Amino acid sequence: MASTTENPKYKVIGTRPIRHDGVDKVTGRAKYGSDIHPTGMIYGVLVRSPHAHAKLKSVDTSAAAKLPGVRAVVTHKDLREPGNTILELGEGAVNLKHLSNNCLAGDKVLYRGHPIAAVAADSIHIAEEAAALIKVEYELLPPVMDIREAMKPGAPLLHDDVFTDELGTKSTTASNVARHFRFEQGDLEAGFKNAAHIVEREFTTATVHQGYIEPHNATALYTADGHITVWTSTQGIFTTRQQVAELLDVAISKVKVVPMEIGGGFGGKIRVYLEPVAAALSRKSGLPVQLVMSRADVFESTGPTPGSYMKIKLGVDASGKLVAGEAYIAFEAGGYPGSPVGAAAMCVFSCYEIPNAKVDGFDVCVNRPQTSAYRAPGATQAAFAVETLVDELCEKLKLDPLEFRLKNAVKEGSRRVDGPVYPRIGMIETLDAAKNSEHWKTPLTGKHQGRGVATGFWFNAGLKSAASATVNPDGSVVLLEGSTDIGGSRAGLAMQLAETLGIPAEQIVPRVVDTDSIGYTDVTGGSRVTFATGHAAYQVGLEIQRQCCLRAAKIWEVEPATVSYQEGTIVGPAGKQFTFKELAAQITKTGEAIVAYAAVDPHGCGGAFATHVVDVEVDVDTGKVTVLRSTLVQDVGTAIHPAYVEGQMQGGVAQGIGWALNEEYFYDASGTMRNASFLDYRMPTSYDLPLLDTIIVEVPNPGHPFGVRGVGEVPIVPPPAALANAIYHATGVRMQTLPMSPPAVLKAILAKAAASNGKH
Amino acid sequence: MASTTENPKYKVIGTRPIRHDGVDKVTGRAKYGSDIHPTGMIYGVLVRSPHAHAKLKSVDTSAAAKLPGVRAVVTHKDLREPGNTILELGEGAVNLKHLSNNCLAGDKVLYRGHPIAAVAADSIHIAEEAAALIKVEYELLPPVMDIREAMKPGAPLLHDDVFTDELGTKSTTASNVARHFRFEQGDLEAGFKNAAHIVEREFTTATVHQGYIEPHNATALYTADGHITVWTSTQGIFTTRQQVAELLDVAISKVKVVPMEIGGGFGGKIRVYLEPVAAALSRKSGLPVQLVMSRADVFESTGPTPGSYMKIKLGVDASGKLVAGEAYIAFEAGGYPGSPVGAAAMCVFSCYEIPNAKVDGFDVCVNRPQTSAYRAPGATQAAFAVETLVDELCEKLKLDPLEFRLKNAVKEGSRRVDGPVYPRIGMIETLDAAKNSEHWKTPLTGKHQGRGVATGFWFNAGLKSAASATVNPDGSVVLLEGSTDIGGSRAGLAMQLAETLGIPAEQIVPRVVDTDSIGYTDVTGGSRVTFATGHAAYQVGLEIQRQCCLRAAKIWEVEPATVSYQEGTIVGPAGKQFTFKELAAQITKTGEAIVAYAAVDPHGCGGAFATHVVDVEVDVDTGKVTVLRSTLVQDVGTAIHPAYVEGQMQGGVAQGIGWALNEEYFYDASGTMRNASFLDYRMPTSYDLPLLDTIIVEVPNPGHPFGVRGVGEVPIVPPPAALANAIYHATGVRMQTLPMSPPAVLKAILAKAAASNGKH
Repeated sequence: MASTTENPKYKVIGTRPIRHDGVDKVTGRAKYGSDIHPTGMIYGVLVRSPHAHAKLKSVDTSAAAKLPGVRAVVTHKDLREPGNTILELGEGAVNLKHLSNNCLAGDKVLYRGHPIAAVAADSIHIAEEAAALIKVEYELLPPVMDIREAMKPGAPLLHDDVFTDELGTKSTTASNVARHFRFEQGDLEAGFKNAAHIVEREFTTATVHQGYIEPHNATALYTADGHITVWTSTQGIFTTRQQVAELLDVAISKVKVVPMEIGGGFGGKIRVYLEPVAAALSRKSGLPVQLVMSRADVFESTGPTPGSYMKIKLGVDASGKLVAGEAYIAFEAGGYPGSPVGAAAMCVFSCYEIPNAKVDGFDVCVNRPQTSAYRAPGATQAAFAVETLVDELCEKLKLDPLEFRLKNAVKEGSRRVDGPVYPRIGMIETLDAAKNSEHWKTPLTGKHQGRGVATGFWFNAGLKSAASATVNPDGSVVLLEGSTDIGGSRAGLAMQLAETLGIPAEQIVPRVVDTDSIGYTDVTGGSRVTFATGHAAYQVGLEIQRQCCLRAAKIWEVEPATVSYQEGTIVGPAGKQFTFKELAAQITKTGEAIVAYAAVDPHGCGGAFATHVVDVEVDVDTGKVTVLRSTLVQDVGTAIHPAYVEGQMQGGVAQGIGWALNEEYFYDASGTMRNASFLDYRMPTSYDLPLLDTIIVEVPNPGHPFGVRGVGEVPIVPPPAALANAIYHATGVRMQTLPMSPPAVLKAILAKAAASNGKH
Repeated sequence: MASTTENPKYKVIGTRPIRHDGVDKVTGRAKYGSDIHPTGMIYGVLVRSPHAHAKLKSVDTSAAAKLPGVRAVVTHKDLREPGNTILELGEGAVNLKHLSNNCLAGDKVLYRGHPIAAVAADSIHIAEEAAALIKVEYELLPPVMDIREAMKPGAPLLHDDVFTDELGTKSTTASNVARHFRFEQGDLEAGFKNAAHIVEREFTTATVHQGYIEPHNATALYTADGHITVWTSTQGIFTTRQQVAELLDVAISKVKVVPMEIGGGFGGKIRVYLEPVAAALSRKSGLPVQLVMSRADVFESTGPTPGSYMKIKLGVDASGKLVAGEAYIAFEAGGYPGSPVGAAAMCVFSCYEIPNAKVDGFDVCVNRPQTSAYRAPGATQAAFAVETLVDELCEKLKLDPLEFRLKNAVKEGSRRVDGPVYPRIGMIETLDAAKNSEHWKTPLTGKHQGRGVATGFWFNAGLKSAASATVNPDGSVVLLEGSTDIGGSRAGLAMQLAETLGIPAEQIVPRVVDTDSIGYTDVTGGSRVTFATGHAAYQVGLEIQRQCCLRAAKIWEVEPATVSYQEGTIVGPAGKQFTFKELAAQITKTGEAIVAYAAVDPHGCGGAFATHVVDVEVDVDTGKVTVLRSTLVQDVGTAIHPAYVEGQMQGGVAQGIGWALNEEYFYDASGTMRNASFLDYRMPTSYDLPLLDTIIVEVPNPGHPFGVRGVGEVPIVPPPAALANAIYHATGVRMQTLPMSPPAVLKAILAKAAASNGKH
């Protein structure tokens, strides 16, 4: 769908060229993680714990090591255990002891699937046979799977050295609660005192997985001089480099990470799992080693997004203005601390001006795999709670949900509960666009149909990026970047450079290169690449402009100050001019190459808001929810490549619908996941979804030369809440648990009917 | 041996760290051309002409194409034939029509081994079988193998569209002589009139091959969107890119050349042979294709250095000052024009002040493979002639050969016959060092022993280079370069950056990267890399210094002008300071990455001079020459890594000895090479050589920040002449033909004895 604003001043931005990596991807030529086969490569297999919680009494690898064809066996002893050191890692921070133990368990296993040892052999079959020969003696411990159980005193303890960071003070008693933090503003008690209406509800959400198509993989070669090359599909080549260097105990400069194409990440491919193990196996064997996960490994042993327990309370005055909000948010950390509960706390009240508010966050260890980021991590869970409460308030106040949101919406100058004051943002514009949409204006008519609306926020990240470029004699420009391309960023970055230079996007050759070939660049995450790496591409363009002017001045023998760069043309005095292509053809003959490099650390990434309008029909006999129509309205700042922006919006909504209606980890009492396959872990397919409509709103971000805001994450935030609201309007039941799967919805419908019958 | 001058001001330059790529190379991990195996790769074989000169009447590939397993067959029609366009190529220029026809012959084959067609198949065996099914009908033509025969009117003509460029005017009659040019200074006739002694001799030299260990290879993948990736071992990734783009008719930006390690080049791995053919096969098959030459292919079909015919005349006055010189130099071009006769003409009189001189150069087609550069191309042949004539003059004048050379040596301000005026050079210093050497002072005592001395010159090249660097948090710096590393240049460049930054060489991580990842860089040739790419590394270092100072100023909150970079330490006001490593650790926390890029096109590469002193013993019964002692004295400007400088000097002398005493192409009358193997083409081994002593002289080049001059080429120049002079002093016979192999020397000894007997 077309943009609501136009940018006639741009020539490349806002167009939809074919992506530079498109042909390779559709013809199968693009090389993903397991497509690399260095000469002499051998194959590795991990031994994983069948138990969710146990002490490791002994690990005997001797029989495996003796099997002919086995080249190396490693255990936790082959990784450095650096103690409880915190490693700053771009978007987050990592406890190195935990990272090391998560890659290969030391004295305990903390979840089913926890790796214990690894073997590398001449064939995958020998490696599997050898893995089966590794004898592990366990002392079984009771697992704790539920977050509220884990928080109770006397719960089985995962760690004896995790002490609650209780509002900044370390407790002295070991606990599963790693951290309790708080954000506050105003006077909460006074706020609720002045409220005309107050609602308070509890919510739970299930553990769900990002479900990227490509399983984790790593191929590593440790050479005799201690250099390590790692080929992997990752969201962050530099963060992978840093983690591998730490766990293998070599200098960062001895590790080179070569990015392969990446089949999805969504936040789950930042922490390393296989890379250090492959490198350790290579160090022992002297050969390149490849490790690839199965789908079950991915479910059981990588980082899904946390399940949560939340209790939220909102107060509103008689006019419909929010006056107070309180949130208690507890997130599953999994086996090791570090859930994205902080981001949930930042986002929970971020769409509304709430003068008096308090948010308590809790990070809680349970015997599940260590959780990770998943597309706007934490914001979706928080929005599910708050936005359904808002719907309940609207009902009480008999206010239109969009009008209520418009009345309470944050705008430039509003202050978020965790501190920041908003710059120019587009919350109101997305609400207006939703209100004016054909979807909103079209009434529902069927039985058991309902419409829900919800808004979501994601703060987006800035962080560090680098880019470099060289001008070819044919007028093309090679653009190097260190941001792995998950969502079409090659095109989005190339277009920003093309716009800066006033040349077609096709004249840019974007390349994602290894850690030795580009300046430090943070992860592809936080919706930051088009913003921050785009900023670097723009800076590179300015530098090329400058050098083009200097070169033209040299050729024309005029003062450099008399030459300027105007939309792809270098203009000198007395009518002299070169097109960019003409000048490019002159470079080699007239001096050194034209090359440019930029490293940036930009602030002002701007926040992103999205409003989701969704219609459902509920089969009240089965509880099955069918999505009839979906429109996501999002402020994207400036849509560099509108088709990829729409793709991000649609992808986020699709994942949000899956999270809302189907997805969850089923664990049995022993802590075994019972649905660790795509057959049983039910993600939505095209059969489950209508066409997902999008409305792009463009409120340019003042913090970026082209007004870019991140677009990739916020679209997943509102759908679960919008669907819960739609289900309510279709059935009269308020869902407070995710997923709202058929049995859950049916149960709620039956309970309501029973209660209603009881009243009669 | 130690340097004759010291550079105490340098901390890194002049030391001998282990080369960065050393461990990979000695452990077999380094990847050479044929070590790359992209997924799905198939194998190609070329069909080569068994005739030295023939018209191609028909090429029938139909049977080959039908063989199961064959994926593609290509002929000349699959390459673009761009007409007689001249492509500027860094060190030289290439006629694209000739290049195209040399890769796959069009209507004629011009030498035995000339490729005609190529086939790619699932295995090398199928490819070979298919190649045998290709039917070629030839119309045989008489070959012309000898340069003087080829110059005669009525000689068999190789080309009907090659017309002599006769002193700048194109002739209208087709000829094997592609070019006749002339350099002149002073008044030649008057010069010879004033001469007290005149000597004039004719010389011939054989065709010899560089003999690099690694045969030519190319692996190419042409993807569905018209992008070509070429993996190859080459002296110039950008020149390869340009040639492939031209012959495949795609834009330069669609070709990426990935450098593999290179097992020697010496000038012979600049022109493409296999790369365009592999790309054409990949275009047809859709699969990656690999082509690798056999040793016979390398001898018969790549570019050896030309055999030559020279006639030189020198005049000297009674005081021993040279007054006139005349040179007629004709070089074999091989099948297509373009021998390095121009460089021979520039170098022939370049060691001496000769006020009156004339040089005529001729480039002549013969039915041999198209010749290429070989280490100081042309200079060795020219020096063989001039330096033996000088020895004859010394004998006539009864002058010590070093004293004669000192008397006539060029120095700063001297003018070369082709125009340039010398900057500060070290000809005199090398002669002085030779005179003072223990070798020179130690008399020979044995029978049939003789000592020879000769001097050589090479002008060295500058050309374009780029470098870029990023600073890692561990204080290491990754240095990217586009110069493929043939002779240890990773170390030599890393050391220049390390010196600039005041850090150890081991803290630099040098990487040779592909054409997309670095600014345009000319070939590794012309002894230019340590000079020009080193210049770029130095510039990169200055830029890193600047950024370090800015960052320190930001951290200290002081004015940038108060911060300076002093030998690895960033020094601020009031005693504030960071070591480079300390600052590096702060970068990520305090802002964007520190990255730097430099592209240079430096002039002032300075000329290189070397003097060779060699002792031989001749077995007068067999003509076998044994080298007893060898000392090369060379002005290297500044020795960055003295061990690699010595290695270059020793390597050049070893190759010069091979050229002098053994190597030659034996052709039969039909134009078939009879010794196309390392068994029959006799290169010297360690059994044939004494320890090769070196004396490094350092006369810093004023045109380089560290005084670097190129060192790789000039050492090959004097040995053949020095050996000829030594043989004379051992036997009394003056050799005027290379090689001075046992039968040739014996023949000369017997002829002299016969003449001497005849006199009696």
